[in-house]
Amino acid sequence: MASPGSGFWSFGSEDGSGDPENPGTARAWCQVAQKFTGGIGNKLCALLYGDAERPAESGGSQTPRAAARKAACACVQKPCSCSKADVNYAFLHATDLLPACDGERPTLAFLQDVMNILLQYVVKSFDRSTKVIDFHYPNELLQEYNWELADQPQNLEEILMHCQTTLKYAIKTGHPRYFNQLSTGLDMVGLAADWLTSTANTNMFTYEIAPVFVLLEYVTLKKMREIIGWPGGSGDGIFSPGGAISNMYAMMIARFKMFPEVKEKGMAAVPRLIAFTSEHSHFSLKKGAAALGIGTDSVILIKCDERGKMIPSDLERRILEAKQKGFVPFLVSATAGTTVYGAFDPLLAVADICKKYKIWMHVDAAWGGGLLMSRKHKWKLSGVERANSVTWNPHKMMGVPLQCSALLVREEGLMQNCNQMHASYLFQQDKHYDLSYDTGDKALQCGRHVDVFKLWLMWRAKGTTGFEAHVDKCLELAEYLYNIIKNREGYEMVFDGKPQHTNVCFWYIPPSLRTLEDNEERMSRLSKVAPVIKARMMEYGTTMVSYQPLGDKVNFFRMVISNPAATHQDIDFLIEEIERLGQDL
Amino acid sequence: MASPGSGFWSFGSEDGSGDPENPGTARAWCQVAQKFTGGIGNKLCALLYGDAERPAESGGSQTPRAAARKAACACVQKPCSCSKADVNYAFLHATDLLPACDGERPTLAFLQDVMNILLQYVVKSFDRSTKVIDFHYPNELLQEYNWELADQPQNLEEILMHCQTTLKYAIKTGHPRYFNQLSTGLDMVGLAADWLTSTANTNMFTYEIAPVFVLLEYVTLKKMREIIGWPGGSGDGIFSPGGAISNMYAMMIARFKMFPEVKEKGMAAVPRLIAFTSEHSHFSLKKGAAALGIGTDSVILIKCDERGKMIPSDLERRILEAKQKGFVPFLVSATAGTTVYGAFDPLLAVADICKKYKIWMHVDAAWGGGLLMSRKHKWKLSGVERANSVTWNPHKMMGVPLQCSALLVREEGLMQNCNQMHASYLFQQDKHYDLSYDTGDKALQCGRHVDVFKLWLMWRAKGTTGFEAHVDKCLELAEYLYNIIKNREGYEMVFDGKPQHTNVCFWYIPPSLRTLEDNEERMSRLSKVAPVIKARMMEYGTTMVSYQPLGDKVNFFRMVISNPAATHQDIDFLIEEIERLGQDL
Repeated sequence: MASPGSGFWSFGSEDGSGDPENPGTARAWCQVAQKFTGGIGNKLCALLYGDAERPAESGGSQTPRAAARKAACACVQKPCSCSKADVNYAFLHATDLLPACDGERPTLAFLQDVMNILLQYVVKSFDRSTKVIDFHYPNELLQEYNWELADQPQNLEEILMHCQTTLKYAIKTGHPRYFNQLSTGLDMVGLAADWLTSTANTNMFTYEIAPVFVLLEYVTLKKMREIIGWPGGSGDGIFSPGGAISNMYAMMIARFKMFPEVKEKGMAAVPRLIAFTSEHSHFSLKKGAAALGIGTDSVILIKCDERGKMIPSDLERRILEAKQKGFVPFLVSATAGTTVYGAFDPLLAVADICKKYKIWMHVDAAWGGGLLMSRKHKWKLSGVERANSVTWNPHKMMGVPLQCSALLVREEGLMQNCNQMHASYLFQQDKHYDLSYDTGDKALQCGRHVDVFKLWLMWRAKGTTGFEAHVDKCLELAEYLYNIIKNREGYEMVFDGKPQHTNVCFWYIPPSLRTLEDNEERMSRLSKVAPVIKARMMEYGTTMVSYQPLGDKVNFFRMVISNPAATHQDIDFLIEEIERLGQDL
Repeated sequence: MASPGSGFWSFGSEDGSGDPENPGTARAWCQVAQKFTGGIGNKLCALLYGDAERPAESGGSQTPRAAARKAACACVQKPCSCSKADVNYAFLHATDLLPACDGERPTLAFLQDVMNILLQYVVKSFDRSTKVIDFHYPNELLQEYNWELADQPQNLEEILMHCQTTLKYAIKTGHPRYFNQLSTGLDMVGLAADWLTSTANTNMFTYEIAPVFVLLEYVTLKKMREIIGWPGGSGDGIFSPGGAISNMYAMMIARFKMFPEVKEKGMAAVPRLIAFTSEHSHFSLKKGAAALGIGTDSVILIKCDERGKMIPSDLERRILEAKQKGFVPFLVSATAGTTVYGAFDPLLAVADICKKYKIWMHVDAAWGGGLLMSRKHKWKLSGVERANSVTWNPHKMMGVPLQCSALLVREEGLMQNCNQMHASYLFQQDKHYDLSYDTGDKALQCGRHVDVFKLWLMWRAKGTTGFEAHVDKCLELAEYLYNIIKNREGYEMVFDGKPQHTNVCFWYIPPSLRTLEDNEERMSRLSKVAPVIKARMMEYGTTMVSYQPLGDKVNFFRMVISNPAATHQDIDFLIEEIERLGQDL
């Protein structure tokens, strides 16, 4: 049986020689290799035999499985004296891997073979001749493979197969024609950094257990605040598990700033609070209000213009209305890059209103924050420097692997005061280092995943200018798409004018609908077009783009471009594919 | 200059031959290798030259950097015709990696070299002769290396150096002598699964973009509910970013179940709600209450016995007291495995009280849930099957990489009703598949990291019996430690009796304190012992174990064992090390 990783190269043939088809070849080859100078022969032989330290050792008749069964093996000292034998995954289990006393060799082999599977997947992800998705309906997929969990272990050959199977059915989110979400693409440095993060396997709550990552969070958040425009990058912040949580944190902090007693006394002790955000804003504002005991009815949705931007005069009118009712406006959440239209609320006008009425100004720049990296486009966020807090998700427009969301707060210390509970088992006050680096009490989470390293390493690798080039390119591609379809037969734009972000919203009108009058029947038929085309896209697996209705507008396509692999040809392909899949509707 | 990955083996020497010390060796060796049969020569040459598809190709005078500068290169079709040259990281940047049109070769080389760095780190992590931590104070670490972010990109050689430097200063959380947190150890299958998760880089909100992972979450949560003891594994659940958030979700759902109007109307529309949990419970209950607008004053802390278990009679007394005041008890959070003592609240008695007063029963089994996998120890959670919700963190006692926390809910549909906001851009109602698999509206998060795959793959690899063996072994080690120190000179136990979980809480009494009377001065001096020993442990880097005060008890060590690499010898070592570092105090 071929080893799962054999498409690339692999350990783990049945006789363990490293070459499934030619028993003994690797060993013979290894002997030749030893003659070369400089150690490379040793290194590669070591690789073949899966052991970097003891390359030429191939003796020993005991299988690793048998060796592992000597459970009490007390090889505390290195090098371990357990005997070596060939790697055959069918006879190996998780218990044979490190920290098993003879686990180094099978571990290196196993991890390397997993890596080979991943590398194959990475290469395939960028190959336009492969499918974006090999779609199966949930019931099909449940039946196609045995996913159930059992009492007994499976061997490592089976584990490698599961890795392959999982990736077979996965969406290739790095594929140049994957446009389905605001987060697309697969950055190689970011990926490497995420692998490292997994390997370091620690938590962000204290400097004690995450010294480097805590410092990198400090450095990175400061840099982000500088870019926002807060003097000297001063302020506060944290990486949180996604934009929805970041927005909720902002709401919590705004409430605490105005009514610190809410922490102990709850909402019963404060007047009715009202938050304001646009009708195009993200649903997480309402989710947050529901969670925080504020209630969704207390989130007032401000009208937008035809481009999806909040209308400042309506904001002011609704603030006055709330105050007249005796309610307390405590938060305005402006959006910099709405989810569907990619609209930027007029932040300067919003800032003026917030200042006038002394209301916390939050900017949800989860999607639009990336544009701050571009000298050409950052004007769209003018006024963000006047915000009290900003949500900015580098996992969206900046292509950082999921998840990476930052909440930045202008006033230092507020987060800590709002959330701290002084858990003495984590935040001991008599530690021997500067306790200001124990950041865990700033957030609701106790354990917190390390989300900063992938952003930091990508930033080192690209520089700010690299992010800028990526943002500029994606916006240029969106404009390219807009220019092609705005006057093309069979397309209608959902709103007029050049896209502000990379969102391009449009209907595809199949030939059968083009001559119909603009009445209810046409609307009804048009509403079914995008879902059918999308379903066909997924079944063919050629591309993926999102659609939705919005307000009185029936289902339309929302194209977004954050994918660094996308090119003009991919935009052309998308248009042709929509037409190919939709012309008969 | 040696290539960063060269300790193991590496691409990327200056002449690109694959061997930094012997230019041309790899190429010569490759010619020999071609003579062997079965393709292994090709595969290894490919590896040397970093290109699986085009092994023997070594010509081409253009550097990849130069090739990459041809920005408009339109190699949409595979195989790409761009010329190949040697890999030299000093001349390569992130822009030379995929999706660059000639990026496959440098990408494979780069990712493989990152992997070599990670594999070295993994092997070192399990080596007792290496330090757990190479400790530096924050200011030292900030000065020792340039961590700042700049406008200009760095080359890939520098990026690889950053990976090495980051790991140099990281805590080796897989080290057999790392006992600092409830989450310790580094599972090889879990690590592999987390690498795969990073590579798949998707979000959990819809089946559309995470088909396999959504199904695996369904399968895994069902299995966990079966183990809890809910009939047929029925119910609901979700993986959330940590136990604190899981506990907060439980509180939200309990509140919503009793007063669904809170979602729209907020806390203003409901009577004063009271939650009950023990004085030894996790601080996240208070954090959650603060966030949800309930207020920390409405979290009543129930007295514990000397072992840290909630006293049911005190619970009932406080419930009646709250009711008499006209407040509404809505939640009891019992703890299965407290953070410091590892105590298990008497769940059956708590369940009876919750039933009597119709209160939602939550069990915070973040730490103790793992014991459900053990036939020998699961009796400690008897009554968990009567809970309405359970927090269970496989990233703690089950050794799954961070983060992996599940909230399980007995009643189906409640989570969805509590949290859903029907975002039409994600949860389109006219999709072509069964929408019940779009789970994103069950939680506060919008984007949600894939936390299930590492648990699922580990479960396949270990079987339930493998987790059982791990749990039993850790508890056996804790008992071993307890038996050694309970009568040993220089030790005092914080509470009497065998540990229920792996928490062993004790004071080390240095010789100078042993003859002192038990008065305030002794307490004051004793309180300084653990912090100094801990600081010395970190400076020597030999081991790490936590300490804290609790109530009227001054600083004591809290040893916990979840680390699969720990052995009896490591426990012996810990005791000797504490004595070595503390005897002069």
